[in-house]
Amino acid sequence: MKLAVIGLGNIGRGFMSVLREKQGFLAKKYNLGFSVVAVCEKDGCIVSDKGIDLKSVLKVPMKKHPSWTGRKTLDVLSSSAADIALEFTPGNMKTGEPGFSHIMKALGCGMDVVTSNKAPLALAFREIMDYAKRKDSEVRYEATVGGAIPLINLYRSTLQANEIRNIYGILNGTTNFILSKMSEESVSFDTALREALELGIAESNYRYDVDGVDTAVKVVILANAIMGKDISFSDVAVTGMREVTAETIELAKKHGSEIKLVGDVSQLEVSPRLIPQWHPLNISGVLNAVMLETDVAGDITLTGVGAGPRETVSSILSDVIELGLKRQA
Amino acid sequence: MKLAVIGLGNIGRGFMSVLREKQGFLAKKYNLGFSVVAVCEKDGCIVSDKGIDLKSVLKVPMKKHPSWTGRKTLDVLSSSAADIALEFTPGNMKTGEPGFSHIMKALGCGMDVVTSNKAPLALAFREIMDYAKRKDSEVRYEATVGGAIPLINLYRSTLQANEIRNIYGILNGTTNFILSKMSEESVSFDTALREALELGIAESNYRYDVDGVDTAVKVVILANAIMGKDISFSDVAVTGMREVTAETIELAKKHGSEIKLVGDVSQLEVSPRLIPQWHPLNISGVLNAVMLETDVAGDITLTGVGAGPRETVSSILSDVIELGLKRQA
Repeated sequence: MKLAVIGLGNIGRGFMSVLREKQGFLAKKYNLGFSVVAVCEKDGCIVSDKGIDLKSVLKVPMKKHPSWTGRKTLDVLSSSAADIALEFTPGNMKTGEPGFSHIMKALGCGMDVVTSNKAPLALAFREIMDYAKRKDSEVRYEATVGGAIPLINLYRSTLQANEIRNIYGILNGTTNFILSKMSEESVSFDTALREALELGIAESNYRYDVDGVDTAVKVVILANAIMGKDISFSDVAVTGMREVTAETIELAKKHGSEIKLVGDVSQLEVSPRLIPQWHPLNISGVLNAVMLETDVAGDITLTGVGAGPRETVSSILSDVIELGLKRQA
Repeated sequence: MKLAVIGLGNIGRGFMSVLREKQGFLAKKYNLGFSVVAVCEKDGCIVSDKGIDLKSVLKVPMKKHPSWTGRKTLDVLSSSAADIALEFTPGNMKTGEPGFSHIMKALGCGMDVVTSNKAPLALAFREIMDYAKRKDSEVRYEATVGGAIPLINLYRSTLQANEIRNIYGILNGTTNFILSKMSEESVSFDTALREALELGIAESNYRYDVDGVDTAVKVVILANAIMGKDISFSDVAVTGMREVTAETIELAKKHGSEIKLVGDVSQLEVSPRLIPQWHPLNISGVLNAVMLETDVAGDITLTGVGAGPRETVSSILSDVIELGLKRQA
């Protein structure tokens, strides 16, 4: 199975590093061999139809690699022998680019696509899926929601007989860390945020998290992917967590609840909500937790690491393996 | 897809009732049609190669059904046109019968098997799986562990790249209800048990639950199914929950923990353990919660309804649909 890796940030590097580690395991367990035939960044690509040594890509600066070329991603995809394109570029929530163009190009070339890039899916879900269908290809995106939590594939592969009545939960680890900190140590938002920044849990673009935008993007993807809707980012009513004070949290605790930033897919809403202390969604720290309300299985909750380059690769590889097995069949 | 349903207790009835409700949905979504060609109980079977009207089976006493025959299950399986046999008889933890013979017979006749019956799997896992492999058939058993929680299929279909380092958690809803009650209302084991019995959460054979046997059986199945072991019931060290007093629970709470009856698959142990209040396994009421420790995705926890005839059918149908799609391909 030939792969083109687009984007060499944390996720792209994490993917190649885990793929190196797991190649023997995947060959033995699934009889699947993977070779990376292109690695692309903004300025150019490393290209080799015979397969690129992953160790060399992880060690050497890209432009110094013997197989480096200044050709751009879209051009390289046009002539690539890849079966699956992996889109890991950073998302731009205004345009969806460059991910959108990469995905459409790869589909146009007959490739399947696996992506961790939320922006194109939040802005143009139906357009992408319709085009994939027309090209008889697939776009998989488990990694866009909940990091390591296999939410979409859980729905697809284990709850087949169920209709999903709602999906809601904690979809952003940074805000959950801040709210947990405020609750456990009775500190202010600013103090908790500072600690999150120091620990590298929050990044410089933390506004995206605390204002609820990241959660809203995931609500859009889940609504379209699992609940059959056709919505975009602007359809979600978003309230972030800045108004939540240590005093409000204290009051909530007195009544047996915690305050969490919750994304609610059937309501198309992101807002701080009271979660009773006994509730499966009452999870602290950087974890994510998502509840699926179903008509047969009742409520199923999945909890796990919502971010992290290594953990997220579990979701990416799940999609890659599924597509690999399909292509092999 | 032709089905033989063996065992007409709560699960068997629940299955047929949900199948009736979902037939249109499954036909539309998966292009799968199911007809039940045999329904078997101890004294005989309802048999019709053209398909049995499920409503009639659910309404009329079996022996009054027009397609009733006194022929026994093994005999009916021998000549049945069924593609998949569903084994729902009660388990006998000494012999594994009658489930074991039903499963082996169905495999011998070229059928796939889906079962909710823990006893045969806990006593003879490898023997059953080896025979299935030789016959080029499959035995699926999602419903044997965790009721509605799709634990085995989660592992199989969404964590493919991971090695599982441990599985542990609360695998029995009755004991979790009793321990939660003791903790929340500071009552004794006897008082909590009485309430569980009154509510129908505990049954007359509650010893099986409180002494840890039910949890141990699930540990055996998970060890064999997910962690590649080859063990049987006698390999598990089992301590039940009778020694846990309201005072111990009070003391644990003072130190920020709850006491839960935990099955630990890598340790092959069932015992009451301290679970910190912030931990994802700290779940109260009749819910089950299971944590998978993985090498790539980190810790993933699944929480849901651990029993119940309707909820468990979600797991059964997941297996039936997978097998149906495979046979159709």
